Amino acid sequence: MAYINVPAGLPGIRGLMAFRPETAKYINELAEVLLRNDNNTLTRGERELIATHVSYLNDCFFCQNAHGAIARHYLQCDMKFIDNVNAHFESMPISDKLKSLLVIAESVTKGGKFVTAAQIEKAKNYGASDKEIHDTVLIAAFFCLCNRYVDGLGTTAPSDRQFYIDRGKMRAEEGYIDFDLYK
Amino acid sequence: MAYINVPAGLPGIRGLMAFRPETAKYINELAEVLLRNDNNTLTRGERELIATHVSYLNDCFFCQNAHGAIARHYLQCDMKFIDNVNAHFESMPISDKLKSLLVIAESVTKGGKFVTAAQIEKAKNYGASDKEIHDTVLIAAFFCLCNRYVDGLGTTAPSDRQFYIDRGKMRAEEGYIDFDLYK
Repeated sequence: MAYINVPAGLPGIRGLMAFRPETAKYINELAEVLLRNDNNTLTRGERELIATHVSYLNDCFFCQNAHGAIARHYLQCDMKFIDNVNAHFESMPISDKLKSLLVIAESVTKGGKFVTAAQIEKAKNYGASDKEIHDTVLIAAFFCLCNRYVDGLGTTAPSDRQFYIDRGKMRAEEGYIDFDLYK
Repeated sequence: MAYINVPAGLPGIRGLMAFRPETAKYINELAEVLLRNDNNTLTRGERELIATHVSYLNDCFFCQNAHGAIARHYLQCDMKFIDNVNAHFESMPISDKLKSLLVIAESVTKGGKFVTAAQIEKAKNYGASDKEIHDTVLIAAFFCLCNRYVDGLGTTAPSDRQFYIDRGKMRAEEGYIDFDLYK
């Protein structure tokens, strides 16, 4: 049971969104523009992988599975692939640019000052644009918010990963705004 | 110089807002509803103190001074008072309820799972409502985003604290949305 009186049957961040729709509105708008808006040279799958990896590092079960399943949908892979990216992305078949951005996201997770000029330089050498670096840092920072929000208020999360896989496709298609919290 | 090409003369988060207005819009809207909206039983000063303390713990010079100066304006105190709250709020003349909320904010800064049922119970015993606890956790989580965003992209910050004091009153009066970034 969460630390505050959220509606029953709404796990993770969804209960908090129902509790405080005034703040949920802008959290969802930010998720939409960062993760899903197509005016971006990072694919939706790449952005969701960054979100998932930060949530994995922060040990947030709800967020890492919710966004892992959305990444799975976009990348048309299985959850084992997502788990392997989380555990050892350096040896996975993803681009060097994405690997260099995941290194930056790991640093952001520890704290802003952990990002180094050498990490930024490496990402640029692999072709990352300023906007891609910006969005990587902001996605990582945003999930440092979401993970703390979800776990800091003691929300519950279904333990069955199939729950997230089933919803991943739906969230990918519907997006982060104007969806039915109770569906 | 920041890691990405932000407009000259805009320190801290302001350069990032100019670089990516599409995301800045929702970050600012969230700041406004969380920190400044008057439909809240936490005063603006209390909310800015929570934001400042988290930024202090995350060692983000720009955010701790910018929001410390806004808190100073609302509380009509000097910066020494703000510094003392950051360093040892337990012994400062603030309410027991606010102290218990600052304890929760400190835990959120470390990570969501550091918040304990005992910390929540104590805040409730001092009269904190569910909404006040929610907002404390979300303000703390939000500044874990802002601090990482500002420092993770290597932005610059004026070292003279008077710069922030001068702007604190202006930001308190103008709010977080629809202000002139270049003013």
